Amino acid sequence: MTGMIDDKSPQPPPSGRRGPAEHERRGQILAAADEHFRHYGYKKTTVADLAKAIGLSTAYVYKFFESKQAIGEAVCGRCLGSIEAELRAIAGEPKPAADRLRRIYKTLGKRSAELFFNDRKLHDIVQAAVEENWQAPMTHKAALQDIVRQVVGDGRDAGEFERKTPLDETCRAIIQTMLPFWHPLILERTLDDLDDNTTAVATLVLRGLSA
Amino acid sequence: MTGMIDDKSPQPPPSGRRGPAEHERRGQILAAADEHFRHYGYKKTTVADLAKAIGLSTAYVYKFFESKQAIGEAVCGRCLGSIEAELRAIAGEPKPAADRLRRIYKTLGKRSAELFFNDRKLHDIVQAAVEENWQAPMTHKAALQDIVRQVVGDGRDAGEFERKTPLDETCRAIIQTMLPFWHPLILERTLDDLDDNTTAVATLVLRGLSA
Repeated sequence: MTGMIDDKSPQPPPSGRRGPAEHERRGQILAAADEHFRHYGYKKTTVADLAKAIGLSTAYVYKFFESKQAIGEAVCGRCLGSIEAELRAIAGEPKPAADRLRRIYKTLGKRSAELFFNDRKLHDIVQAAVEENWQAPMTHKAALQDIVRQVVGDGRDAGEFERKTPLDETCRAIIQTMLPFWHPLILERTLDDLDDNTTAVATLVLRGLSA
Repeated sequence: MTGMIDDKSPQPPPSGRRGPAEHERRGQILAAADEHFRHYGYKKTTVADLAKAIGLSTAYVYKFFESKQAIGEAVCGRCLGSIEAELRAIAGEPKPAADRLRRIYKTLGKRSAELFFNDRKLHDIVQAAVEENWQAPMTHKAALQDIVRQVVGDGRDAGEFERKTPLDETCRAIIQTMLPFWHPLILERTLDDLDDNTTAVATLVLRGLSA
């Protein structure tokens, strides 16, 4: 997933440089990829298509991403990252931990459903990610673990949540109960019941957490 | 999924009939299918292969199953049905509902993992079931719902479990929390942590249920 650019030592920009800096090129490639994947699908898009769309050579694109999958991973990572940012903001609010956790379930389900299913063409990137065991979902899961740990920790510190169960075990359980709300292949089958499902699970989990 | 045989009116067996009765033929076809799918995979097995294995014509097999998918569904249904039978037996034991529910989580995870991953070749039937949206997993989910409802109902009647939350909502939540323990694409990624995951989720859920 890391392009060659990440392996280079930082260098001062050459004076008289024309055109965008390398990190901007990277951003351009990802923006073109995001658009192409949504309009044409991941499988039908080639690296050459992306290069052409932004007026670069294919070889130049490969300077930044070693494969189409690396581009797919980065696009996935950006989409999932925007959900994580929203959940982190909720986790940081000065409200009872129970309220924050309930909103995290709701928001995770809602935003994941929007991400995967508002653009039907994104379905094939999800399929590729599942079949090829991409890194992006693993990174997402790790981010969710951090967010859950923060809120559960706050709730324990504030005396809202019980402390007898080891924190690791509690967080592990919560992460499992969140899986149906961000795993695309499960979400796809349960969209109609999503709101009832997140409400029901959050209620049961919060009863289980309460001091 | 229903073969033509199911649409016929019952007929008395012809006198002097040779060979097995029709329901036995059905069983033979399923046994051959189960063996072929495990050894060669679902995708590589044809209806003609199955017919040949038991010395029947392909047309005769189609009398019982309208398509290869119908055979796949029936094989899946039998495998999942054996797990359901084991869970039903646990649900019916004269023990506290909490103990039964904990064992249901454990057994569901263990048996599902064995079913899907002891025979690596079964993986492609799972893939077909997911991609083609087969009926068998839906039937399985409905069976799990019945089992959960029985145990939660018992626990409420016995005063072990709280009764303020509507029964439907509680059962809905539990079913969602069980998904990671029987969905093959999730199980596949979490086999190493399966025991810790079922323990953690069962503990959290049981705290949430307690009166």
